[in-house]
Amino acid sequence: MTERSSARRRRAARSERSVGALSQRPWQTVTYRNAPLEIVSADEIESIHRAALTILEEIGLKVLSAEARAAFAGAGFDVDEGSEGVRFERALVEALVAKAPPRFTLHARNPARNLEIAADRAVFVSVGGPAYCMDLDKGRRDGSFEEMCDFLRLVQSLEVLHQEGGGGFEALDRPAETRHLDLYLAQIRLLDKNWQPWGLGRQQAVDALEMAAIMLGKDLEALAETPVFTCVINTNSPLQLDIPMAEGLMAMAAHGQAVIVTPFTLSGAMSPITLAGALAQQHAEAMAGIALAQIVRPGAPVLYGGFTSNVDMKTGAPAFGTPEYVQAAQVSGQLARRLGLPFRSSNVTAANTNDAQAAYESQMALWGAMTGQANLIMHAAGWLGGGLTASFEKLIIDAEMLQMMAAAQQPLQVDEDTLALDALREVGPAGHFFGTAHTMARYEEAFYAPLLSNWDNYDSWVERGQVTAEQRANQIWKQLLTEYEQPPLDPAIDEALADYVARRKHQVHGA
Amino acid sequence: MTERSSARRRRAARSERSVGALSQRPWQTVTYRNAPLEIVSADEIESIHRAALTILEEIGLKVLSAEARAAFAGAGFDVDEGSEGVRFERALVEALVAKAPPRFTLHARNPARNLEIAADRAVFVSVGGPAYCMDLDKGRRDGSFEEMCDFLRLVQSLEVLHQEGGGGFEALDRPAETRHLDLYLAQIRLLDKNWQPWGLGRQQAVDALEMAAIMLGKDLEALAETPVFTCVINTNSPLQLDIPMAEGLMAMAAHGQAVIVTPFTLSGAMSPITLAGALAQQHAEAMAGIALAQIVRPGAPVLYGGFTSNVDMKTGAPAFGTPEYVQAAQVSGQLARRLGLPFRSSNVTAANTNDAQAAYESQMALWGAMTGQANLIMHAAGWLGGGLTASFEKLIIDAEMLQMMAAAQQPLQVDEDTLALDALREVGPAGHFFGTAHTMARYEEAFYAPLLSNWDNYDSWVERGQVTAEQRANQIWKQLLTEYEQPPLDPAIDEALADYVARRKHQVHGA
Repeated sequence: MTERSSARRRRAARSERSVGALSQRPWQTVTYRNAPLEIVSADEIESIHRAALTILEEIGLKVLSAEARAAFAGAGFDVDEGSEGVRFERALVEALVAKAPPRFTLHARNPARNLEIAADRAVFVSVGGPAYCMDLDKGRRDGSFEEMCDFLRLVQSLEVLHQEGGGGFEALDRPAETRHLDLYLAQIRLLDKNWQPWGLGRQQAVDALEMAAIMLGKDLEALAETPVFTCVINTNSPLQLDIPMAEGLMAMAAHGQAVIVTPFTLSGAMSPITLAGALAQQHAEAMAGIALAQIVRPGAPVLYGGFTSNVDMKTGAPAFGTPEYVQAAQVSGQLARRLGLPFRSSNVTAANTNDAQAAYESQMALWGAMTGQANLIMHAAGWLGGGLTASFEKLIIDAEMLQMMAAAQQPLQVDEDTLALDALREVGPAGHFFGTAHTMARYEEAFYAPLLSNWDNYDSWVERGQVTAEQRANQIWKQLLTEYEQPPLDPAIDEALADYVARRKHQVHGA
Repeated sequence: MTERSSARRRRAARSERSVGALSQRPWQTVTYRNAPLEIVSADEIESIHRAALTILEEIGLKVLSAEARAAFAGAGFDVDEGSEGVRFERALVEALVAKAPPRFTLHARNPARNLEIAADRAVFVSVGGPAYCMDLDKGRRDGSFEEMCDFLRLVQSLEVLHQEGGGGFEALDRPAETRHLDLYLAQIRLLDKNWQPWGLGRQQAVDALEMAAIMLGKDLEALAETPVFTCVINTNSPLQLDIPMAEGLMAMAAHGQAVIVTPFTLSGAMSPITLAGALAQQHAEAMAGIALAQIVRPGAPVLYGGFTSNVDMKTGAPAFGTPEYVQAAQVSGQLARRLGLPFRSSNVTAANTNDAQAAYESQMALWGAMTGQANLIMHAAGWLGGGLTASFEKLIIDAEMLQMMAAAQQPLQVDEDTLALDALREVGPAGHFFGTAHTMARYEEAFYAPLLSNWDNYDSWVERGQVTAEQRANQIWKQLLTEYEQPPLDPAIDEALADYVARRKHQVHGA
């Protein structure tokens, strides 16, 4: 066979791929085995770090929460109540950030699903935050509670997803004030994996904490020693922290839970048009948020969130999965490691449908995250349309990509067995390896088995209906829902959770 | 703005992207600025290298060409004429491989398009070798000469493609015996870039050399000092070299042209089922081919080709862009650097249509190539369906991905200007950067401008017809063809080339 002349010959080979059984890699978190890609020098990282400290010291942040301002003032920072401004003495910021631990364990209701958040690990998280849901059958629409539950069932079913990211999309058929309670109860019932709560305001955080305590049979004090939550807190870039975010951050940190401080730094809009400037701003805002968590509870776990991308300067539209996005993720990893903290990145695209663009932008984002050695990858599966949409098909497409990224991190074995000199001696020139003992002993587990990819030759693919990746993804999520089994939960815990939700709904809505 | 709550707000923003003008990055080859990703240790590379030498010494290659066997015998290797077997004394192989230069310059008819083949550079090459052509309008079909010329025009028009890869697909409406002459004449006329000839048999090589000499106004001796060709030579794995390949290799090497020795090592079929074994076999076959080139002409330029992938063990179908493919590319880069030689990799997918799978498999392959620091990436644009098809739309989709890969290699500037402290001071908390002097001075060139990607928000995208990436690619290649301008060629050279082709056709076909 050759690259050129084999074409006609290979055409004849018919593939007889079995249909029906879905291939998944077993549950396994990812361990990085090589050094991260560091695209700027240690000196340049120091320049960005120093610039961030200068931003904090000279410009500071506007902090809308009086409680947060009081916390900063109590820690010795310069607070101006009139302008709501806080300025940060650099040595003090650095000392506070240094209190955050480099690694911690996140607890799930199934201990086999506990997660290590650490420099050499990666955790893949399903999408959280979109307003809409979308599938190939019904298009983009407001999501219902039942649809949200289906999305959660799929996140539970996909072994490559290590953490659930906050509901996928909002259940807009439930009242806004207590929607988070419906979500938390569904997350606990439908998943035995770790899940993310919402972090807007104190009440969303407190309800999550109370329900997690019931879930694990602990009180809140014990919960603080066994963190269960990573909660995304976006600063309001540039250089502002609003009340709901500050409250969510403080409530989570007070209870020993991990906040993922993630500035929303779109270069050219909320941040300087130069990536170095946007990253300096990201670094400043992240350090301020992390410092607040450490004031509230020294040693509270945190993650350093990087979300820097850019806007299209002609239209203002945000861009995702671009070369700038890749570089920002790689440098953000360097900045997080400069602080000795775990790093959060994302899998993002601006595409509105599951076409080639959705895949290549997501791949760029994922490779940026993995070469930058992100330790938690948010929106790793299901994100579409700049994050406004959670797509059922994208969930499956991303799961395939994540499985491949994870498999590519597995060590390549080089030893006498794998060098296979005996097999080569047996086969010799112009033979083939299909029937050798070396092959027969290994063929079942030898290679990555795809969940979604179709490797049929063209003629078979045409005969079988020219099914695209998006159409196959549609079939796969339906099959997974059919096969889904709800993980068992102690009925007493289930009842206690239901009681808590009923009581809280009664408080909000009345009888 | 936040990740979660911004959804509804961002929905309102309408993007007014201009249509009509196509964005391309200007012609520029790629320079690697970071260390390659080395996923196995130097010791493990030595193990693979030693295993390869053992394969060559103990098993050897079957060499079907008597001329090649004579060359090997003349260089002191052990040749068995009965079995057509050649065994390679290890020190002698290593000494021959060491004669190949680590870098060289490839000449194009436009000197501005000359290419450096070297360790810190990457050259992107359009697809070569498919049997079929395909577009969204007419589907997959046998390609005609006119269609092949359109494909060449597009390769010329796409600035990110540095080299043309051998015609894209075959012009099946031209006689097989002289089809290569029609191709070479079209390559010279329609492109001013460097192009690849076919390397099957002596005559295809000699015609390419004669026509390149006319193109540059040189004789064959001078041509040997200014290489113009990189010519893919596949060994017939396992461990065999056939007559057309050996003849092509020897003819090219004799004239100082670069052969890309590329074993066709599909793990589980023509190679051991373990990647380390497949790579040892690849390394053995590559060294044997490179040694032959050095026997023919010591110091002749060569590239180390890595094409190791695997088959689906259930069906025998070849897989591309998988985790195994990525790792094989990364280790192949290490093996090439162990020999001090430039490394060739590829952008490949098994997908039969331009869906998400085509994009994510191609991205995996490209990231494998780029993190492995390939110096020449074959099939970088246009490959579909396991290499049986050259797709007009994939050509555009890949060009976008290549532009992004190239842009991600650009250095990220960290200095006083880019850290933008003055802009941050000017804007302050809760402001925006759209109108600042720092932004205004930079907005036109600030960010990667896509050729293909659509960043419209969902509502605009729907209003504009829900056009997918593949459909946009269809529009773009048609627009590029409309705008194509044939690069000027000295009429005397054009006439001499036409004469050569006419004379050769007359020899083959008669009057």
